[in-house]
Order: sequence, then C-alpha cells, then structure tokens
Amino acid sequence: MQAFSFKNPTKIIFGAGQIKLLGPELVADGIKHCLLIAGGGSIKANGVYEQVTDSLQKAGIVISESWGVQANPRLDKVRELIALARELQVDAILAVGGGSVIDSAKAVAAGFYLNDIWNAFRGSEQVKQALPIYTVLTLSATGSEMNGNAVITNNDTTQKWGISSALIYPRLSIIDPSVQSTLSFRQTASGAIDAIAHILEYYFANDTAKSTLAINAALLKTIVEMTDRLKLNAGDYEARANLAWAATLALNGTSGIGLNEGDWACHAIEHSFSALHQEIAHGEGLGVIFPAWIGYVSDRAPARFAAWAKEVWAEDSVSLALHKFRGKLEEWEMPGSLRDLGIKDPELPTLVEIILSGAPRGLGEVFKLSKDDLQALLVLAF
Amino acid sequence: MQAFSFKNPTKIIFGAGQIKLLGPELVADGIKHCLLIAGGGSIKANGVYEQVTDSLQKAGIVISESWGVQANPRLDKVRELIALARELQVDAILAVGGGSVIDSAKAVAAGFYLNDIWNAFRGSEQVKQALPIYTVLTLSATGSEMNGNAVITNNDTTQKWGISSALIYPRLSIIDPSVQSTLSFRQTASGAIDAIAHILEYYFANDTAKSTLAINAALLKTIVEMTDRLKLNAGDYEARANLAWAATLALNGTSGIGLNEGDWACHAIEHSFSALHQEIAHGEGLGVIFPAWIGYVSDRAPARFAAWAKEVWAEDSVSLALHKFRGKLEEWEMPGSLRDLGIKDPELPTLVEIILSGAPRGLGEVFKLSKDDLQALLVLAF
Repeated sequence: MQAFSFKNPTKIIFGAGQIKLLGPELVADGIKHCLLIAGGGSIKANGVYEQVTDSLQKAGIVISESWGVQANPRLDKVRELIALARELQVDAILAVGGGSVIDSAKAVAAGFYLNDIWNAFRGSEQVKQALPIYTVLTLSATGSEMNGNAVITNNDTTQKWGISSALIYPRLSIIDPSVQSTLSFRQTASGAIDAIAHILEYYFANDTAKSTLAINAALLKTIVEMTDRLKLNAGDYEARANLAWAATLALNGTSGIGLNEGDWACHAIEHSFSALHQEIAHGEGLGVIFPAWIGYVSDRAPARFAAWAKEVWAEDSVSLALHKFRGKLEEWEMPGSLRDLGIKDPELPTLVEIILSGAPRGLGEVFKLSKDDLQALLVLAF
Repeated sequence: MQAFSFKNPTKIIFGAGQIKLLGPELVADGIKHCLLIAGGGSIKANGVYEQVTDSLQKAGIVISESWGVQANPRLDKVRELIALARELQVDAILAVGGGSVIDSAKAVAAGFYLNDIWNAFRGSEQVKQALPIYTVLTLSATGSEMNGNAVITNNDTTQKWGISSALIYPRLSIIDPSVQSTLSFRQTASGAIDAIAHILEYYFANDTAKSTLAINAALLKTIVEMTDRLKLNAGDYEARANLAWAATLALNGTSGIGLNEGDWACHAIEHSFSALHQEIAHGEGLGVIFPAWIGYVSDRAPARFAAWAKEVWAEDSVSLALHKFRGKLEEWEMPGSLRDLGIKDPELPTLVEIILSGAPRGLGEVFKLSKDDLQALLVLAF
C-alpha cells in the first residue's frame, strides 16, 4: 500500500428534492452574486434550472447566466466566461450540469485570477487562488463534483488537457439523483463507463492496497448492477442514487488510495479521440479503449488482472472476464470499436501524434506504452 | 438510499516514515505552540514520541506536554488539560496516541472556549469554536482520527457520553501503520472489532444504499482478513496498513452514507460496560454485545441480516454467519460473554439503568430496544 496524502473538502448534499438547499448554503458562505453556467438547455427541460433559480432568488442571491458549454468543453468558451466573470465581478461560480459544465466552472474560477487560464494547463502559470465553486450535478459520470480536476479542450491545438489543484474542489455539490431520470440510457451508460474507467485507471497499479481494491471491486459491481437496472427502468430512483454516489466515489480520491497515482493511459488515449471528433462521448471512447488496453497489458502483471477477473466478474481468467465486460458494453448498446465511434483508418497516426504531444515522456504511469505499443493498441481497438 | 449531507475536511498523511511531515504542516498552518497530549508512555517505547518531537523541534514549534490520558478517557483529565491549555495559551492541540487520546484532544480543543466542556455533552452549551487539532495515530480502532466525534466518561456520574461537531474534526492526522507493529495482538484485535462494530452499526439500517453496503461488506472482509494476517505476523506492514485505512473509513462518514444515521444501540450498551468497569476495552465489549444483538434483532429485518450473512460470511443463514463471526472472535482470543469481561450477574440491572440514563427515549435508532429488550439481551450476552 503506497504512502498517500488525502484531503477532500467538498461538501455533498445528496438526495431527491435537495436543490432547494442551495440558496441558504450560498448565503451562509457570504455569496452575493454568482455566475451560473450551463450547457444547452436540458436543465430547463428537467426542471433543475427552475429549482436552482427559485432557491437562489428566495435567498436574495444575484444570478448572472451564461449558456452554451458543450460536451468536451472548449477553451474559447472558458476564456469568454472568465471575461464575463471579471466584467460582472461575481463572487462565485455556479455550475449547473454535468462534468463539462463543472470542469468549465473550475477553469473559470481559477482563470479569474490568472493572465491566461491555458497557462495553467501548459504549466507556465500556477493556480494560486480561485473563486468559490458550487455545483448542481445533472449527469453522474466524471466525478468532477467532488474533486480538484478539470479537463478542457484547446480547439486551436486539438489538445485536451487537464489541471489538478486543491483550490478548485467545489465548495459544495448538490446531487439530486431524481433529476437524472430524464437522461437517455445512452447518456446513463456512457456516464457509468466513465466511472468504471476511473476505477480501472487505479485498479491495476499494485496488489497491496487490499482495502482500496476491495472497495473498488464493490464499486465496479455496483455500477454495473445499477446501470442494468436503469436500462430496464430509467425512473428507478434507488438505482440512480447508488450509481450517482458510486460515480462520485470513483474519482473523489477514495478509489485511488494507496494505488500510487493510477495509470491513466486510457484517459489520455480517449482524450485524443474526442479532441479529433468532438461528438464522441468520453464514456463511449473509454468503453472502446479500456477492454483493448486490458487485453494488451494484462500479461505484464497477470496476478492483478486475474484478481480483477475474479473479484469483479467472478471469472478465473482475464479472457473470460474481458468477454463478460465487452458483452456488458454491447448489452448497453455502446460502441465496440474505434470504427463504431466514427474514427477512420487513416486517422490512427494522427491520434498517435495527438496522444504523444500530451505525453512526451511516453504514456502510462504503471504500464508504459511506447509509440509502437500505442500503434498496436489502436489497431486492436479499431 | 437516504438523503444525506457529507463533508469531511480532515487531511490524512499515511504511510511508513511520514511522521516527519508533522512539523512542516503545523508551520504551514501558522501554529507556534502546541499542547501535546498522550497516554501512559507507549509512544516513548515505540519511537513515535521521538519522531514527533524531532519534527516539531526542527520546525521551531514550542511543545508543552501532558501525559496520563487513560483508556475510556475521563472528564476530570479533560478539565485539567483545558485549564493547562488556557494557562499556556497554546494555539493547537496535538494528540499522539489512540482514540482515547484523540477524543480527549477534541474535548480540550472545544472546551477551551466553553464555560464547562461537560455542558456540551449534556447539551446545555454548544460548541461554536475549537482550537485546531492534530493527531498522530498509534492504534487503529475508533476512527477518531478522521471524524468529529469524541466520547468521554464522567466518572462522577458513570456517564460515558459523546459529542459530534464539525469543529472538532482533526485538521491533520498522520497515520504511520508501521508504528503499530509493537501492539499486542489483543490490542490489534480489539481495535479491529471496534472498526467492525462501527460498520455494523450502519449495516442494517436499510437495504437500499447498495453502494455503501457493498463498500461495507468489502471493509468488513478486509478487516477480518488483515487481522488474521496480523495474528500470524505482527510485523506484516501491508496488513497493518490496510487494517488501519479500513478502520479510518469505518467511521469517517463513508460507511454511513445513505444509511440514515445508523443504529448505535450496541455502542450505547458497550459504553455502560466500560463506564462501570473502566478496564474493559471498548472493542472487547463490542465483540460480546454485537453477536448477541444480531441474534436478538435479526428477525425484525430478515432480508438485511441475510444479506450480511451472504456478503460478509458467504453463508445462507444468519445463524451460520453468527457462528462464523463468534468463531472468529474466539480464534482471536476475545472474550465471548459479559462474564468473560468480568461483569457479575448482580450488575446487570445497574447496566440497564446506566444505558437508559443516556437514552431516556429508548435505545436504537433503527431497531428499538425497550427496557425488557435490554434486560433480555444482556441475559443472552451474559
């Protein structure tokens, strides 16, 4: 079990009907004017927008709004939002949406105090301060509601890069699982795969952190079981709630305890897919690359992958577990290959280039992938 | 899954050799003078005292010391420490020890600002401020290193009562599992049972919080497995580390998510044992009462107890699971009955009185225990 340091200061308020607590929480923190940022308007359709603005108005909070954050959120939008936050002199950023909106909020909160937010992603400026961040989550997937990470795509350079800072943990996230009942199953499943992938990025890093590995197996099985239930009944509140909480735990620090920093090769690879094709959902890309990656690297640490096969899939061999994993993704009607994602054969070298541009020292913290490995892996996933 | 609110601001630094980071952390927080509180001197034998004072001295922190905190920590000692902290005008409390020392530190930190700390336990004064609390953990058991609870015994009234406050979470806890290798197996096992009991207090509260229940089963199995390993080899670092982290998670909020507030009847009952017989280790008392309680109440929610039997003990019936649970405690050479704990038959009515004095509205948040239930349960456990 690797030595570690852990601190997660985010407050979570969780449950049906809890959004009404938002206003009083902001008042208690002394917030007077927030910039509400959101995506394309689904929060108006599902009633979340009304609940949020009702609660804030009753509490006397001034709200400014900006809409139009896209999936795979873009740097140009973040810069626009930073300019707006400065112009309005807001004292908090409120993200109402999924991971893209929350990641954008984090970049805005930090960028508010920087010369240019992209400098923080490039490493030439350091986050030293950030506006307080509040979130109301509408899609359980990225875990961004309870961590200090943000991933933004620079469309000029097709770089999809991340920052991590103790200063951009949300101060409060409200998770009302009932508002997710209007999601399509495709959105639900894609979110579930994102959460699964977060756990898998840590799972194989060592085999000594038994307590974390046992928790991770429990979370993986819970996510699969709850997603199966939601395929049958999108309105199954208990399944929504348990999936939502498992997805939060998948990337709030809990799943990585004692497992070094995890591997993260699959995330880097997937980021290249959506940097090139912004229409690819992050979870769907991960669902394609992860099984291929497990197949490709599992013989480098057979015992760890065998433990995953046994604990999560009740199988004695990695091949059989992979067969079940892929079968599950197929059952959920997720894409099974790069081709299914809409990627063309001639694009593979470009993907390799994009991946290596973000990882000049090679890919994978635990299982190193050379350029040759990457090429082979993409062919396998194609 | 019950609605919940969760926030745990404690920073954890975990791993062999990490105590040296204490001084720099206090400096970063602006601490200049701390009151180090400790128990009977085991921290001198195991080298922890030297590591702590070395780190603080190098960092230029002034240390005042007070020794002699006992197991089942006493109100009179807490009052003495509060007077000392005021006299010295320290700006932080540093607990070096196990749960008793940490709980005392919390009571001192809060009591520093109160007319009388026992008022907070009686509910007549509210904790509104506390000195910052730092801990270096030497026995994994109570989880106090990462929560806002403190349990203190008022020896004048034989009341063993608790407080909970967001203000008494340690700011930082350092957990170096390697320092626990000098514990006796009896201490290790008693600590493990305490952690098991914390999880069990939540486990049966409902059967909808599947994500938490899956984690709790994983933690329970891990604790048993690691304790078995430590019985064979007290120096097994990985077993120490995983047991330590599981014990922290057992009462840092994680294990109670979505499970209402748990039941806590067994803790209240055990507190009466050690209020009457201060020599009874908390974990040993819990090891006696919990199996008896499960046997007594399991038919009130058969499905929840059957799930525990299956998930944790791989048994189809609660009786068989209880047989395994009791067998495990026996294997660990833990007391199996109130008689084994040194309690005498004529003391049972006194125990009932003590228990009901702390729970005038009856016992058990989930499974209510009347006075008759209590009497029957104690006879069963005798």
